[in-house]
Amino acid sequence: MQNRSLSVPFAAAAPQPDLRDRYREFRALTESLAAPLSAEDCALQSMPDASPTKWHLAHTNWFFETFVLEPQGVPAFDPAYRVLFNSYYNAVGERHPRPQRGLLSRPGLEEVLAYRRHIDDRMQAMLDRGDISNTALHAIVELGLHHEQQHQELMLTDLKHLFSCNPLRPAYVRGVAAVAVEIAPLTWHRIDGGIRCIGHAGDGFCFDNELPRHRIVLPAFELASRLVTSGEYLEFIDAGGYARPALWLSDGWDTVVAQGWQAPQYWEKRDDRWFQFTLSGMRAIDPAEPVCHVSYYEADAYARWAGARLPREAEWENAADGLPIEGHFLDAHRFHPAAIEHRSHPPGQMYGDVWEWTQSPYVAYPGYTPPAGAIGEYNGKFMVNQFVLRGGSCVTPRSHIRASYRNFFPPAARWQFTGIRLARDVA
Amino acid sequence: MQNRSLSVPFAAAAPQPDLRDRYREFRALTESLAAPLSAEDCALQSMPDASPTKWHLAHTNWFFETFVLEPQGVPAFDPAYRVLFNSYYNAVGERHPRPQRGLLSRPGLEEVLAYRRHIDDRMQAMLDRGDISNTALHAIVELGLHHEQQHQELMLTDLKHLFSCNPLRPAYVRGVAAVAVEIAPLTWHRIDGGIRCIGHAGDGFCFDNELPRHRIVLPAFELASRLVTSGEYLEFIDAGGYARPALWLSDGWDTVVAQGWQAPQYWEKRDDRWFQFTLSGMRAIDPAEPVCHVSYYEADAYARWAGARLPREAEWENAADGLPIEGHFLDAHRFHPAAIEHRSHPPGQMYGDVWEWTQSPYVAYPGYTPPAGAIGEYNGKFMVNQFVLRGGSCVTPRSHIRASYRNFFPPAARWQFTGIRLARDVA
Amino acid sequence: MQNRSLSVPFAAAAPQPDLRDRYREFRALTESLAAPLSAEDCALQSMPDASPTKWHLAHTNWFFETFVLEPQGVPAFDPAYRVLFNSYYNAVGERHPRPQRGLLSRPGLEEVLAYRRHIDDRMQAMLDRGDISNTALHAIVELGLHHEQQHQELMLTDLKHLFSCNPLRPAYVRGVAAVAVEIAPLTWHRIDGGIRCIGHAGDGFCFDNELPRHRIVLPAFELASRLVTSGEYLEFIDAGGYARPALWLSDGWDTVVAQGWQAPQYWEKRDDRWFQFTLSGMRAIDPAEPVCHVSYYEADAYARWAGARLPREAEWENAADGLPIEGHFLDAHRFHPAAIEHRSHPPGQMYGDVWEWTQSPYVAYPGYTPPAGAIGEYNGKFMVNQFVLRGGSCVTPRSHIRASYRNFFPPAARWQFTGIRLARDVA
Amino acid sequence: MQNRSLSVPFAAAAPQPDLRDRYREFRALTESLAAPLSAEDCALQSMPDASPTKWHLAHTNWFFETFVLEPQGVPAFDPAYRVLFNSYYNAVGERHPRPQRGLLSRPGLEEVLAYRRHIDDRMQAMLDRGDISNTALHAIVELGLHHEQQHQELMLTDLKHLFSCNPLRPAYVRGVAAVAVEIAPLTWHRIDGGIRCIGHAGDGFCFDNELPRHRIVLPAFELASRLVTSGEYLEFIDAGGYARPALWLSDGWDTVVAQGWQAPQYWEKRDDRWFQFTLSGMRAIDPAEPVCHVSYYEADAYARWAGARLPREAEWENAADGLPIEGHFLDAHRFHPAAIEHRSHPPGQMYGDVWEWTQSPYVAYPGYTPPAGAIGEYNGKFMVNQFVLRGGSCVTPRSHIRASYRNFFPPAARWQFTGIRLARDVA
Repeated sequence: MQNRSLSVPFAAAAPQPDLRDRYREFRALTESLAAPLSAEDCALQSMPDASPTKWHLAHTNWFFETFVLEPQGVPAFDPAYRVLFNSYYNAVGERHPRPQRGLLSRPGLEEVLAYRRHIDDRMQAMLDRGDISNTALHAIVELGLHHEQQHQELMLTDLKHLFSCNPLRPAYVRGVAAVAVEIAPLTWHRIDGGIRCIGHAGDGFCFDNELPRHRIVLPAFELASRLVTSGEYLEFIDAGGYARPALWLSDGWDTVVAQGWQAPQYWEKRDDRWFQFTLSGMRAIDPAEPVCHVSYYEADAYARWAGARLPREAEWENAADGLPIEGHFLDAHRFHPAAIEHRSHPPGQMYGDVWEWTQSPYVAYPGYTPPAGAIGEYNGKFMVNQFVLRGGSCVTPRSHIRASYRNFFPPAARWQFTGIRLARDVA
Repeated sequence: MQNRSLSVPFAAAAPQPDLRDRYREFRALTESLAAPLSAEDCALQSMPDASPTKWHLAHTNWFFETFVLEPQGVPAFDPAYRVLFNSYYNAVGERHPRPQRGLLSRPGLEEVLAYRRHIDDRMQAMLDRGDISNTALHAIVELGLHHEQQHQELMLTDLKHLFSCNPLRPAYVRGVAAVAVEIAPLTWHRIDGGIRCIGHAGDGFCFDNELPRHRIVLPAFELASRLVTSGEYLEFIDAGGYARPALWLSDGWDTVVAQGWQAPQYWEKRDDRWFQFTLSGMRAIDPAEPVCHVSYYEADAYARWAGARLPREAEWENAADGLPIEGHFLDAHRFHPAAIEHRSHPPGQMYGDVWEWTQSPYVAYPGYTPPAGAIGEYNGKFMVNQFVLRGGSCVTPRSHIRASYRNFFPPAARWQFTGIRLARDVA
Repeated sequence: MQNRSLSVPFAAAAPQPDLRDRYREFRALTESLAAPLSAEDCALQSMPDASPTKWHLAHTNWFFETFVLEPQGVPAFDPAYRVLFNSYYNAVGERHPRPQRGLLSRPGLEEVLAYRRHIDDRMQAMLDRGDISNTALHAIVELGLHHEQQHQELMLTDLKHLFSCNPLRPAYVRGVAAVAVEIAPLTWHRIDGGIRCIGHAGDGFCFDNELPRHRIVLPAFELASRLVTSGEYLEFIDAGGYARPALWLSDGWDTVVAQGWQAPQYWEKRDDRWFQFTLSGMRAIDPAEPVCHVSYYEADAYARWAGARLPREAEWENAADGLPIEGHFLDAHRFHPAAIEHRSHPPGQMYGDVWEWTQSPYVAYPGYTPPAGAIGEYNGKFMVNQFVLRGGSCVTPRSHIRASYRNFFPPAARWQFTGIRLARDVA
Repeated sequence: MQNRSLSVPFAAAAPQPDLRDRYREFRALTESLAAPLSAEDCALQSMPDASPTKWHLAHTNWFFETFVLEPQGVPAFDPAYRVLFNSYYNAVGERHPRPQRGLLSRPGLEEVLAYRRHIDDRMQAMLDRGDISNTALHAIVELGLHHEQQHQELMLTDLKHLFSCNPLRPAYVRGVAAVAVEIAPLTWHRIDGGIRCIGHAGDGFCFDNELPRHRIVLPAFELASRLVTSGEYLEFIDAGGYARPALWLSDGWDTVVAQGWQAPQYWEKRDDRWFQFTLSGMRAIDPAEPVCHVSYYEADAYARWAGARLPREAEWENAADGLPIEGHFLDAHRFHPAAIEHRSHPPGQMYGDVWEWTQSPYVAYPGYTPPAGAIGEYNGKFMVNQFVLRGGSCVTPRSHIRASYRNFFPPAARWQFTGIRLARDVA
């Protein structure tokens, strides 16, 4: 999670005549997400894991400058930015320490936006010069766009954390009125076992950690027809879930005690009622919504309490394979998961709203090899102490997600839009 | 240092017909200090001990609102500000945690400036209504002005720390060109012993910690004719001062090791030459300037190495008593101590440029009683683990300082403009 | 690693008429390991991860008392011991905090040994009363014996850490003279891919985490013919291995920097020569010995530097399956890995001397279900943030190890006897 | 407190024909205090501030070896001990880190006792050789004896802390039965102001921090006729003393919150009744006893709550001057303060039972100069962040205390036998 795994795709991408258009569109989206914010909103950092909006704006720009323009001899906009906005690429040189990203009042937001315009001009000029399909250059621009999308999501998760630290609990956008819905009962969808494949297939873009596609033995299993709701999670809380060590992994229990966890992140009890902070400000807990902002430890403990378990990533991918990419994404501009009444048909909707924790540690697929150079330097660097999440969230761009997509975060992380889907063994 | 000791003066202040003018002038100065800064510069916090400029702007305003206007029934500008901008007055109610002052992007700088205008309007209206001389109201307005001055200094020391954390090392103002000067040799000025008094005398304003004036036994002693220079301090460094535990207090040595101190704060060695970060950016060390940004531990170790000691506060006050308030202050707009060639006549200039560490722990004077109410609630709260500093610095307003003024900081603090004057016993 | 995964075996154990003899023998071995130690040696705790010898002596005894005798109505030796010597079984009740195990001067060593004799008497009496083969009681006694063996190893690893903290570098036993040996060149042994099984098979005892045996897809791979030697590891050090972030996992590099790692644990450089602390005191590094006391991070970084990778646990188990349990174990009383000249025939000797890090996170096998009750309460509790190790070490009892045995420790742990075997993909 | 301030007395000591006898007696007392303890009791360290009994036994011995015998050419008993048992004398060379004193199982208790016998033999031989009165050697032996006494007290305070960490709450000695007593009401004793002297006078031994005797201005004040009792302190607790920040110094309140203080150290509430751990095990709180094991912060907060203040050290010394050294000391073998019924006549008994916190930071007296050499190297090293305590305690040897004696500890320290006497200004 400290990283976004960036890589040159191994599979050759199909010709993409639309690269210029997509470049313009993706980049504009990033800036539109920052548009409602003041310069001060964009400058602050609320914890070492999160970055200021301004840093996201600059770092995604730095990516194109460093990996696309600089190799072509384009002079640096400002040599100091090379260090300031490097995230973790040691091959590129030094970098500003992550926990101190919030100490940079300079360059200001205006300068960073000017930096983006400067790079955009040169990128557009380059893309205007001719078709770069099927070149290494194309692959790296494509990668830069997917990288941009990853940071679109992070901008919002990091901003949410920052705003949650302000006693005024400011709203990023006006909220959507909640609609009372009937929640479908949770049912179990059986999937037969056998020799199956996981990993990315086909011509489209993917990150290197989705490769190589490979065979696995998949035992038969059952998957829940929908996500766990906030209402169900409240039952877990009311049953003393946060006070019973037997429900928790040992490290999880230590974290519960050390952090004083009593509920998901952003939940607050006021006068005996539960509320949650959202990007639209404080709202009462809606029992029909999927529970969100839970750690792996909480997801695992809930599953144990419910007599089930979390799915493995291979199970998830096989269940999702072939299903339409339906659900609420960044494109819906809700910035909050939606109540899940409609997720009734097995295995239901597998995408959007909240990332789904799997019980699979984030490791390399057999035969995985990182690409050469700085881009590849760090691809495998985060394959320790993290767990795979699948399916995307309400702040993921819809075009960014796919069945083979592997997100990953440490088991104690809660500030992403992370939720729970249950699985169980076939008796 | 966590506090600024705020108090109702016990001595009745002389009639001050100029209160309106001084109010306008002091408040305008505060805002002028923030004028060169962007909204982002004003929002960030670089360490728990320091506060954002915006917080200083709001807190000094909060003081007048809370202690002057509110008791007169003026409605709150925004009730949330009561908590956000309270520093440590428990009697006033809850307060936002100090280390999280840098997490408040809202209210923005514009709103805070509007908050100041709002309070200024009401304060001016009140002061226009008639003479309040010799009333409790006058005393509290007076206190608010001195409080405002304290935060003027803190705004600059805290900003310097913030800017020093930025690899771009931005400048707050353009620097004054250094002028090569001849440093007068350090001479010793003998002061006879006897029964003396310390503490504030006369009608003027003072903080409660300067009272009551009381008798002490003062043994004869000698005081250095000028401050220790950077050049002299470099000799201490070159003599291995930071590597010889025998020179240090036990706690001081632990701090040196734990913090990895090798030189005063803001000093950086580049290619074997020493530079320092200033509010005008990086500058080469000028050996003629007084050494600055040293902790009590460093001041004490230097003195031991030099075969001398730090003065006691009673010694300092007796030496300074009656001398003119000369030196470089905030009013000079240098924001940096000046080379000290002119400090040659014993005991030389005792004010300005850098605060002078004394070896006196900050304790109550005999007979000290804190005033009643919230204003007095915290006056004695900081009388532990801190040391007294005397004389003011290059970022202290000249009108703020006097012979009896007691500043205080913990022995490891270095981000204030703090320096060294030596003393010694009479053989 | 915080745990020793204790479980009732699912597979019915074969009749074991020798249970009484083995009980006597295993228990006597534990005490013989403590025999060279003083009461003081047995009482100290050098870090939270390690326990005092006395605690190991008492805790293994507590296991038999709590899970065998108490359910049969045998009164407690001392009710306070129930808390003091519980390791982490919440179902059994409260427990003394692990980091404070070294604060217990009482009960003294003599009392703990008396406690062991007391339990031994009752256990022997019970075993004398008749054959308990094929009963649940038999299974739990068997489990207690394997548990005892796990703590035999931990007693020695924890003692080594304690002695290493003493500037006198005391020796536990007299050392075996080193014999100069010729190291066989490292060769690669190819193992074909296919559908294979892993997990415990057959009637013998196993821990629950070795079950259920299940099918996996195993790609073809190559395994090194022997362990990495200290000489080879020195080349990694001399090549700047500890100074090149590109070789390390991100978390690994953070650990290197935070801990100041420059070499394996217990290595010390004196006058430009490398020595290591052993249970026989300080010894020069023998380049022919397998490198030992490296973390997962170091093993992984070494492998990357060497152009290889660590094996997966399924690879290791398939390579080891059917090979004899040969190597140096606790039974050899060396307490130190031996030079590895003889490990020349592919895949060479797979057991003993040092535990071999795999790149497999410690997770449940598909279909894993923890047994019921306190014994089973914690079996899965440690399946997060740990990596599987295979093969046993020079302080593992030979009878304790098998091809399916899964040991596990966090990636930063170094005080166990842990080493490196390389693997690589088939080109 | 990290130190025991050791010094060569400046005042020449009177001829002491009894030095041999006193040496034998003092040294035997040290060992008799350790006699009830096991080797394990003597080896453990429960926190960085405390040391194992074995270390105290060895360090006091090291003092005589290092400062008396070694300069006379007596060969070292074991050169390694020079480092192991050095406390903080940098001039003597390296030292074993204080927090790791509890990691030394070797040398064992028997070896340390043999080390003491070895040094005793040589010391006695030296003292037998002739009168050393009025020599520097005499002064250093004298100093060693007072140093020995300081560690006698520390052995007991440190042991009490260790035993308190053991859930078995073991007893060091059998307790004295409590006797119900009538507590005299607290009355106030007025002492007139004027020019007075403090500091040691006369020929007897003193530490250098008691010198030079000097004049001070002492305002008139009132001193309580007796110590604050546990019963009175319970009223403070019941009045919410630990929940009202306005009663506390700012640093004190931070400590209360961070440490979760609810009562003095060693107090435990069981079923709504208060008990305390003593060197005789757990006992119900006796309201007639002086409250003990309170920090400076608690003493200060209690005094504020009670409408009084703590005395200054000059006040204490002037009140105590000339009074008999009466009270309960180590010699009484109670190891616990006694109920204070008899302390009725103003200013009552000023010595023994509990050390009395003063509000005076521990600083050098005017004109203080540390003696030369290693002995003097550290005399002033602790004159920061500590407060002076006066009067001795129930574990101080009676012959060790005097009116001018200055003990000192940091304001958060609680494991010494520290209590409260109130003072107040004259209205």
